[in-house]
Amino acid sequence: MKPEAIPQNGRLVVIGGVAAGMSAASQVKRRRPDVQVTALEQGEYVSYGACGMPYNIEDPDRDIEDLVVISPQQFREKRGIDVRTGHRVESIDRKRNIVVARTAEGTCEFQYDRLMIATGARPVRSAVSGSDAEGIHALHNLDSGKQLKAMLGDLPESSPVVIIGGGYIAMEMAEVLTRRGMKVTVVVRSMVLRRFCDATRALAEATLTRNGVEVIQGQVTSYTLRNGRVAGLVLDTGVSLEAAMVVEAMGIRPNVGLAQDAGLDIGTTGAIAVNAYGQTSDPAIFAGGDCAEAPFKLGGPAVYTPLGDTANKQGKLAGANICGAGETFSGVINTSIFRLFDLEVATTGVNEAKATELGYKPLSAEITANTRAHGYPGGKKIMLRLIFDGPTGRILGAETAAGEGAWRINVLSAGIDTGMTIAQLAGLDLAYAPPFSPVWDPLLTLAALTIKKQTAYLKAKQEIAV
Amino acid sequence: MKPEAIPQNGRLVVIGGVAAGMSAASQVKRRRPDVQVTALEQGEYVSYGACGMPYNIEDPDRDIEDLVVISPQQFREKRGIDVRTGHRVESIDRKRNIVVARTAEGTCEFQYDRLMIATGARPVRSAVSGSDAEGIHALHNLDSGKQLKAMLGDLPESSPVVIIGGGYIAMEMAEVLTRRGMKVTVVVRSMVLRRFCDATRALAEATLTRNGVEVIQGQVTSYTLRNGRVAGLVLDTGVSLEAAMVVEAMGIRPNVGLAQDAGLDIGTTGAIAVNAYGQTSDPAIFAGGDCAEAPFKLGGPAVYTPLGDTANKQGKLAGANICGAGETFSGVINTSIFRLFDLEVATTGVNEAKATELGYKPLSAEITANTRAHGYPGGKKIMLRLIFDGPTGRILGAETAAGEGAWRINVLSAGIDTGMTIAQLAGLDLAYAPPFSPVWDPLLTLAALTIKKQTAYLKAKQEIAV
Repeated sequence: MKPEAIPQNGRLVVIGGVAAGMSAASQVKRRRPDVQVTALEQGEYVSYGACGMPYNIEDPDRDIEDLVVISPQQFREKRGIDVRTGHRVESIDRKRNIVVARTAEGTCEFQYDRLMIATGARPVRSAVSGSDAEGIHALHNLDSGKQLKAMLGDLPESSPVVIIGGGYIAMEMAEVLTRRGMKVTVVVRSMVLRRFCDATRALAEATLTRNGVEVIQGQVTSYTLRNGRVAGLVLDTGVSLEAAMVVEAMGIRPNVGLAQDAGLDIGTTGAIAVNAYGQTSDPAIFAGGDCAEAPFKLGGPAVYTPLGDTANKQGKLAGANICGAGETFSGVINTSIFRLFDLEVATTGVNEAKATELGYKPLSAEITANTRAHGYPGGKKIMLRLIFDGPTGRILGAETAAGEGAWRINVLSAGIDTGMTIAQLAGLDLAYAPPFSPVWDPLLTLAALTIKKQTAYLKAKQEIAV
Repeated sequence: MKPEAIPQNGRLVVIGGVAAGMSAASQVKRRRPDVQVTALEQGEYVSYGACGMPYNIEDPDRDIEDLVVISPQQFREKRGIDVRTGHRVESIDRKRNIVVARTAEGTCEFQYDRLMIATGARPVRSAVSGSDAEGIHALHNLDSGKQLKAMLGDLPESSPVVIIGGGYIAMEMAEVLTRRGMKVTVVVRSMVLRRFCDATRALAEATLTRNGVEVIQGQVTSYTLRNGRVAGLVLDTGVSLEAAMVVEAMGIRPNVGLAQDAGLDIGTTGAIAVNAYGQTSDPAIFAGGDCAEAPFKLGGPAVYTPLGDTANKQGKLAGANICGAGETFSGVINTSIFRLFDLEVATTGVNEAKATELGYKPLSAEITANTRAHGYPGGKKIMLRLIFDGPTGRILGAETAAGEGAWRINVLSAGIDTGMTIAQLAGLDLAYAPPFSPVWDPLLTLAALTIKKQTAYLKAKQEIAV
C-alpha cells in the first residue's frame, strides 16, 4: 500500500547523517518545506563522500574534510534541516514515537511522525588480541579515515603496512598505501577478490605484484605490540609479519541494532527489510543505505549490497515516499566498479551459481580484446566475461578487468535491466572511433562468441531430445 | 526471401578491398573454404583502418602502412583469398555474371556466382578552379593519406593550413594538424558541427579557439597557386587566406556508379539499396559499407551513415548470407563518436526534427555535470542531452560533449535499441566509484530532469484535454 504522506507541519527524524540519511532529509525539505526535519549523527561530520576516503588518504596535501559535501551549518541555513552531530541514538520507542539520543551532555528525546533509519554499516573487525591497539585501523566513517591518515603521515617511507582482507576496499587501500610510499602486504584467508572470476583475479594478482604489493595467505592469530602500538602480527600459518600499521578490511555488516531492538523486521541478509517504498515493517519508519536491503532486479529475495549510489537512491526515494509520492525502487543488480593501480575492475548481475539459484541455465563466455583500434597508440587490454541464459540468450551477468574501458559494464547493466539478449547485444550500434574502441567493440566480439556458445548448447540439447 | 547459398566450389568476386569487402571475403572463406574468392582493389592497399588515418598522420615517426591490418600476401597465404590490387573495376555484366577490371596491363574479366560490391565512398571536392593543384588534399584512401602525410613532412613549422568543412573529419584533422605544429584555419559555410546541438557546438568552438584554431565563415571561390602549388584561397566574403596546404573535408558521397550502370536499385539517400540480408535488387549481388544504405533501427526509410563499424558489420553479414546463413541486419541508429583535442563528442539516435518525422512527439533535456565524485581529482565536465518521446517516455536520441566519459552514449544507444524509457533510465544500476563517476551518474541526473519535463508535459496535455 502506498505510504501515507507525513502530516502538515509533521516531524521527520533521521538517524544517520551520511548518504541515505541526508538524501532523505533533503528530499523531504525540498518537497515539503512545512515538515520539521531533524538529522541525528553520532559523529562529527555529515554528508561526506565515504567512497572517496581512500583517494583522499592518498594525497597528503588534502584535508579529509574536503570530502564533506555540505556542512551541518549549510544544512541548517540553506536547507532548513536541523542537523545534530554528536548525537548517538540509543533507542526507538515506537509506542510513543520517540527517539532517544545520547550526547556529551546527557540524553535527549525527539518526537517523530516519520522516522528514517540510515545507520549505515560497520567494518568487521578481527577478534584477535591486541586488535584495539594504536596503529590498527578500519575504514569506517570520516573520523576513522582522519585517524588513519594522521597516523600515516607520521610513518617513515617504506614502513611495512599490512592490509587484512582481499575485497575491493582492501584493493583500493593497497594502491593508496603503496602510492604513499609504504611497503604493503595483503593478508587473505584464501585469495584476493574471492567473489570474482579467475581471469579478473589473475589480472589483479599480477597488478599487485607488478606494483610491489605482496599477497600472503593466512589468518591473523595475534598482533604484536610495542609500547601499546602495533609492531607486527602472527598468522595461523606460523608466518610473522612486521607492521607499522594494519588496516582491517574484512568486509562490513549493517548496523541493525536499533531497528532490531525496536522490533522491526530484519531480512535474511541480516540487514533491515524494506518494501519497494523504502518502508520497514512499521509504516511510519523508513530505512535505506548501508543498513538496509534492496530489491534485486533479476528476482529472488532482496539483497544486501552496501554501495554509495544505492544509498543515495534509497534515501531520495524514502524522502519522496515520506511525502506520499508513492514511488517504488526498481532495485539493484549489484553493479560495482573499482580501480586497482592501472586496472579497472567492474561487475554486474549474477554469476553462474546465483543464476542457477534463480532458475536460469547459465552459460558463459570470456574474451580478451584490445581497447583501441589497430594502429592507434596507447591501447590496453580488456577482459570481458558474460553470463547468459542458455535457452533464451538473456544476459544475466558480466565482469570485466581492463586497462581502460570498464565502462562497458554499464551497457551490460542496462542490458540486464531491459531483458536484452545476446543477439540484441551483437546488433548494438556502439560508438566507434580509433581513440575509443576497435572497429569491433569488445562487447560485440563477446556477443559473437556467446552466440556461438548458445548455438552449440541448443544443438546439443536438441540431439539429446532426439 | 532468404538468400540461396553460393554453389559448391562457386566463385565470389568482391569489388573493394577495405572494411566491408574484406570482411565479406573473409567470412565466406571461413564458412565455405570451397568457395573461390577474388577481391579486386583499385588501390595499392587492402584491409586498412581508414578511420585511423588522422591519428597516423599526427605521428611523423609512423608509416601510414601501419594502418594495414592484413596484407594482400597474408590474405592469399593465410586465408586463401585471391587479392588483386591495382584492379579498377569498370563494369558489371549481370547477364554474363562477369566483372571487367582494368589493370596497368589492360582489362581482364572475372566470372562470379555471387558478387559483393564494397566500392566505398569518395570525398566531395570543391569544383573551384585550381582545386587539383599540388597541396590540396582530401582524405580518401590510404594513398591519399600517404600523399598528405608526405607533403606535411616537408612543411616548415607554423605553416598556414586551411581545412574546408566543419564535420567530424574536419575536426579530427584540425587537431592533428595543430599537433603537427601547423597554424590551422577552418573554413565553414555556416558553422562547425552543423548537425549537432548548440551546446556541443559551443564547446567545440571554445576547444578550437583554446587550441589556436581559427574558424572562418565563407565558401572558397578560388585557389591561389604559386609554381603549380597552392599558396592561398579566396572566400566569397572577400577574405583571402594564405595556405601552404589545404584539406577539403566537406563530406563524402557513396561510389554507386558501377551499381547504377549495372541497373541495380539506388536508394533515396543516393547509396545502393540493400535488404536486411545485404542483398541488392539482384539476388546474386550483395553490397555493404560506405557505398550502401543501412536499415534504421527506429523505423522509417533506410539511412546512409558511412562508418567503419557499420561497414565491418555489413561485410560480415553479406559474407554469411552469401553462404546461405539467412542472418538479418538489425540496422543502425547513427551512433558515432570523435575526439577534438580534449573534448569527446558523441551522438546516437535522432534529433527532434527527425523524431517528429518518424511520428514521435519529442521532448528534450540537457545537463552539464561533473564526471567524477566530489573531491576526487582530475574530474571534467560532461554535457548530456537526451531526446525522448513525450507521451511514452521512450528514449529516441542523445548527444554528449565531454572532457571524459562520452562512453555514456553507448548506454543510451543500447537503451534506444531496447525501447528503454526515461523511467527505466532513472532506475539503472550503474557502476559507481569516485574515479569513474559522481555518486549520481550524469545519466541518472539527466533521467531525473527528463522525468520532470515529461511530468510537466503530461500535466499540460491533460489540462488542455480538460
